[in-house]
Amino acid sequence: MMVVMKNTATEDQIKHVIEKIEEVGAKAHLSKGKYKSVIGVIGDTQQIDREVLEGFLGVENIVPISKPYKLVSSEFKAEPTEIKIGDAILGGNHFAVIAGPCSVETEEQVVAAAKAVKEAGGQILRGGAYKPRTSPYSFQGLGVEGLKLLDIASKETGLPVVTEVLDPRDIEVVASSAAILQIGARNMQNFTLLTEAGATQKPILLKKSFSATIEELFMAAEYIVKTGNEKVILCERGIRTFEPYTRNTLDISAVPLIKTLSHLPIIVDPSHATGKRELIEPLSLATLAAGGHGVMIEVHPAPEEALCDGSQSITITQLKELMEKIKPLAKFLGKQGY
Amino acid sequence: MMVVMKNTATEDQIKHVIEKIEEVGAKAHLSKGKYKSVIGVIGDTQQIDREVLEGFLGVENIVPISKPYKLVSSEFKAEPTEIKIGDAILGGNHFAVIAGPCSVETEEQVVAAAKAVKEAGGQILRGGAYKPRTSPYSFQGLGVEGLKLLDIASKETGLPVVTEVLDPRDIEVVASSAAILQIGARNMQNFTLLTEAGATQKPILLKKSFSATIEELFMAAEYIVKTGNEKVILCERGIRTFEPYTRNTLDISAVPLIKTLSHLPIIVDPSHATGKRELIEPLSLATLAAGGHGVMIEVHPAPEEALCDGSQSITITQLKELMEKIKPLAKFLGKQGY
Amino acid sequence: MMVVMKNTATEDQIKHVIEKIEEVGAKAHLSKGKYKSVIGVIGDTQQIDREVLEGFLGVENIVPISKPYKLVSSEFKAEPTEIKIGDAILGGNHFAVIAGPCSVETEEQVVAAAKAVKEAGGQILRGGAYKPRTSPYSFQGLGVEGLKLLDIASKETGLPVVTEVLDPRDIEVVASSAAILQIGARNMQNFTLLTEAGATQKPILLKKSFSATIEELFMAAEYIVKTGNEKVILCERGIRTFEPYTRNTLDISAVPLIKTLSHLPIIVDPSHATGKRELIEPLSLATLAAGGHGVMIEVHPAPEEALCDGSQSITITQLKELMEKIKPLAKFLGKQGY
Amino acid sequence: MMVVMKNTATEDQIKHVIEKIEEVGAKAHLSKGKYKSVIGVIGDTQQIDREVLEGFLGVENIVPISKPYKLVSSEFKAEPTEIKIGDAILGGNHFAVIAGPCSVETEEQVVAAAKAVKEAGGQILRGGAYKPRTSPYSFQGLGVEGLKLLDIASKETGLPVVTEVLDPRDIEVVASSAAILQIGARNMQNFTLLTEAGATQKPILLKKSFSATIEELFMAAEYIVKTGNEKVILCERGIRTFEPYTRNTLDISAVPLIKTLSHLPIIVDPSHATGKRELIEPLSLATLAAGGHGVMIEVHPAPEEALCDGSQSITITQLKELMEKIKPLAKFLGKQGY
Repeated sequence: MMVVMKNTATEDQIKHVIEKIEEVGAKAHLSKGKYKSVIGVIGDTQQIDREVLEGFLGVENIVPISKPYKLVSSEFKAEPTEIKIGDAILGGNHFAVIAGPCSVETEEQVVAAAKAVKEAGGQILRGGAYKPRTSPYSFQGLGVEGLKLLDIASKETGLPVVTEVLDPRDIEVVASSAAILQIGARNMQNFTLLTEAGATQKPILLKKSFSATIEELFMAAEYIVKTGNEKVILCERGIRTFEPYTRNTLDISAVPLIKTLSHLPIIVDPSHATGKRELIEPLSLATLAAGGHGVMIEVHPAPEEALCDGSQSITITQLKELMEKIKPLAKFLGKQGY
Repeated sequence: MMVVMKNTATEDQIKHVIEKIEEVGAKAHLSKGKYKSVIGVIGDTQQIDREVLEGFLGVENIVPISKPYKLVSSEFKAEPTEIKIGDAILGGNHFAVIAGPCSVETEEQVVAAAKAVKEAGGQILRGGAYKPRTSPYSFQGLGVEGLKLLDIASKETGLPVVTEVLDPRDIEVVASSAAILQIGARNMQNFTLLTEAGATQKPILLKKSFSATIEELFMAAEYIVKTGNEKVILCERGIRTFEPYTRNTLDISAVPLIKTLSHLPIIVDPSHATGKRELIEPLSLATLAAGGHGVMIEVHPAPEEALCDGSQSITITQLKELMEKIKPLAKFLGKQGY
Repeated sequence: MMVVMKNTATEDQIKHVIEKIEEVGAKAHLSKGKYKSVIGVIGDTQQIDREVLEGFLGVENIVPISKPYKLVSSEFKAEPTEIKIGDAILGGNHFAVIAGPCSVETEEQVVAAAKAVKEAGGQILRGGAYKPRTSPYSFQGLGVEGLKLLDIASKETGLPVVTEVLDPRDIEVVASSAAILQIGARNMQNFTLLTEAGATQKPILLKKSFSATIEELFMAAEYIVKTGNEKVILCERGIRTFEPYTRNTLDISAVPLIKTLSHLPIIVDPSHATGKRELIEPLSLATLAAGGHGVMIEVHPAPEEALCDGSQSITITQLKELMEKIKPLAKFLGKQGY
Repeated sequence: MMVVMKNTATEDQIKHVIEKIEEVGAKAHLSKGKYKSVIGVIGDTQQIDREVLEGFLGVENIVPISKPYKLVSSEFKAEPTEIKIGDAILGGNHFAVIAGPCSVETEEQVVAAAKAVKEAGGQILRGGAYKPRTSPYSFQGLGVEGLKLLDIASKETGLPVVTEVLDPRDIEVVASSAAILQIGARNMQNFTLLTEAGATQKPILLKKSFSATIEELFMAAEYIVKTGNEKVILCERGIRTFEPYTRNTLDISAVPLIKTLSHLPIIVDPSHATGKRELIEPLSLATLAAGGHGVMIEVHPAPEEALCDGSQSITITQLKELMEKIKPLAKFLGKQGY
């Protein structure tokens, strides 16, 4: 951590900063430039809160040198984390396809979707029972009833289920149905939920908020890993930008970047990122080529009847066509299991 | 609501959309253009989920004509909502100053800040007992202990307290100390929290997420007002942009816009919006001139000792100086009580 | 085009809008909703300036139904445009690799880079002679001298050259060296430059501004195609977002979207989009998998000595390694010429 | 400037960076941290291009300590620059109102607007003769003919004129009519135009691009001031964000920030920032309260007939009402001349 002092900073202000640094056991290293002084902090900077130092008089800004995340970092653990769920492995040299409806609506719908996913070669079933909806007037999900339908679909197909949990009080019931607990983009910084979901020691699918930076995603994952649970699957689902053609802008660069910076697997959700079903195929293939560990795709037996996100759901036929492109490409790229 | 069909849409696809619209009791009104057909939906469009229609084949996009929010709209209730809290009124022709430390740290600190706020002419004390922190390694607030310190400070000064609640399970204990429950920016779309906090019938200070649109803020407020509680104070605290000089970009236009579109009061938090104490004064005065109903400001007896957000907290002396500018300007602008 | 009237709009205001529409020969189609009236404009809406109608009293907003661009649209010309340059074809089922240094510095440097590009299998040489630099204190390019060095490198290798033109007065001299004129991101809306460069009838490489929407890119290309020159190569090079890890955020969705909406070829510049050399390979492969028509990559014989953008330039060895991945993948995906 | 090395950087790579720094006459100061080494650069860092060092192997990133701009900085010149134009002064303790139509259309229109501006108490007339338009099918301005109409309006009222120049080849003719040359947002980084307009030694109104940072605005202004012309008026006109209610988001914080960082005057254009005429008044008053040096407002005798930007133009009556609020507030705030 470097503390950059204002060019108007007094000797006393510099001294005061140095004292604070040494107070917590770190070493301060003063470097006087032509215009400004910079104080390097050497030692365990975890002990020093950046925001505390920013409040000191004479301080212009703080430049972090070490990364603020630790347990999720590839510097902490070099070997990629692989998470085994049913027949699927997330991480390493694997590529998993998670697919299913946006929200669970009827037994018929979710079972049809699950069978299609299984048949096409997908490994994990997704489906929402609890839905966070911008409008209080929109369909909010079937809740516990939806979980039961997911159980049925899972039993029929053998596919493990990933489903979202919104409220810490629902973790127990959701965890009894789900092989993977999903923390949605809107809850990425719901720190209580992160901690309590992590504590179940179940795999957690953590979606990046559409307004979060990669570093903030890592800090959110850090909350989970800190509970002793390193089975965290990161998911890029688009960031909010000024481009109106797509719902959000898929940050494809996040895939190779996260693979460099962290040991955790990173997958992509092209359905939510774009909101357009015609983009699912090219973006799924791009994710695979960019080195991603999987995709999560919305599929609905009858998108026109979907109670949410119909425009971004692909049909069962389209899913089959997509898998017929993913499989040979995954094999060509040397992915295991293809 | 207008449904714009693709220029490749078939007669059958158009018919199918019209049937769906009429199925829920609305009227469809087809208009064939040179290239494209547009279907107007007349009647109660609340019954028709936009996302459902978007999933239909042949649909290019949906153009909402009515606003998706209702209870918070100035079309629903023209008269501005005024919320009385202690000596302060939020809304109408009033201007309230809410001030206090980012987080409650010690009795000495919070009492000193409260006395300074009272003396300078502020009307409401702010202070965080539960802190949502990006890093699991940062100070997370004193919790219940902090609420007790706020009680002491409130009793000493007579100032009502606003403090944040993060978890639905804490609503009861927070509500026993707080005159106003704050829903923070990160929880703006935590719909369970909105609903359960609303149900207390206490005034709610709802902060706009740094990634939310004004319409999404209204939809979040709609969740609260739907519980029968219209005592909602909206708060603009900056949006995330590419400008690095300030932590976020204060959207000052949101103030007059929200006053036009809604009956709810709108205040500004310049401290979190900018992260820079030297901007608090000009932005507070700008908020007042733009017609805002108040400001929420971080003040700390010793910003250098603050456990969070020191760089954006002003000192007690600076608070006094600021109030000496706010008061005559509020009077000049005809605000009541000045 | 639909004109949405305010719910407070008077009969007179509605009448006035209808008159204006009919004045220019279009037909107005009034649809009275529960709360609001909407006026559909049928006929040649090119005759009606959206901004003019927006100024009318009682108008809430204008919803365009037709796209504002015409000549670049796939609705205007369904068949993809293919542009032949030297041995390369841009568009259709081809994938071109354009590579070379950010700026031309010395004969030795540009010739070494050109030979490496040729040897590795790249088809077009890039290199900047005129450089738009944020700082007046940065290296501004060699100008005419740089063009001469590009001529030498082109002659030595047989590679055609793409280079940027900044000023309409330089078009002639740049066009005498370049097979393709580049309009940089900062000049995407320099409409004089677009028109005058288009008029040369040379192929134009048009880079998307980091702050432009896809529609604005199309409108800029429309300026060129309107001169009778449809040899326009669109280039996505990242948009400005709040994510700090990369210089900009590559909008990979733009690739398949542009292929759907336009007949013009679309390539990607991963070097400028990210500013990080370790991302060039995964993003180039992602571009190929997403259906892009090519990539433009910075390569430098000695990136440490580069006068600009060293951190994003790959070495000659890295270029070879990249091409050894691009070539088999292009072949696998059925691209012609691989 | 601090060069942060990767934690994998070798001794040789560190040595290589130090040599490069010392090669240009600066001093390198190595500080070895627990994980990483940081090299401080002391001396004239203007000599060292940040991008060059970023290209070195082993370098993680460069942290600038000094600001990249010089001549426009308040560190270079502490005293605020005041620019006298006709009866108006821009800068210091003055507040100027610039008003007029978006584009010059007819003699009648521009003279009516000019008289209204004069009568209401505005000091400078704006009006576009050359219009940069996103669409090649939109009205592009009257050109030289428009300049003549501005001359007439200026003579009739005595108001000095500000008008935009788009092309370096038009500078001479525009400068013969205009008291102030305007560089539009789209041309903020047209470095040739900046330099050649600056060289006229006329006052330059430089609009901030909707995608530019404050630092980039300063760098653009630096191009002008470097020609020996420090008569530069900066203008904030909104930045592009994800908020759709307003055309752009006015960054009001830029006003006090720029006043701290630079000696140049800073004004606000609420018309282009928001695109909504009902926001002009509150944002003009907010600008005044935040310490801005002026506003630039679109006014049209008949906004419904305007050939561009009608929705954001206020009427002559509204201009008078606005001035009746600006004048007493400016007086109350102690602005000179009110």
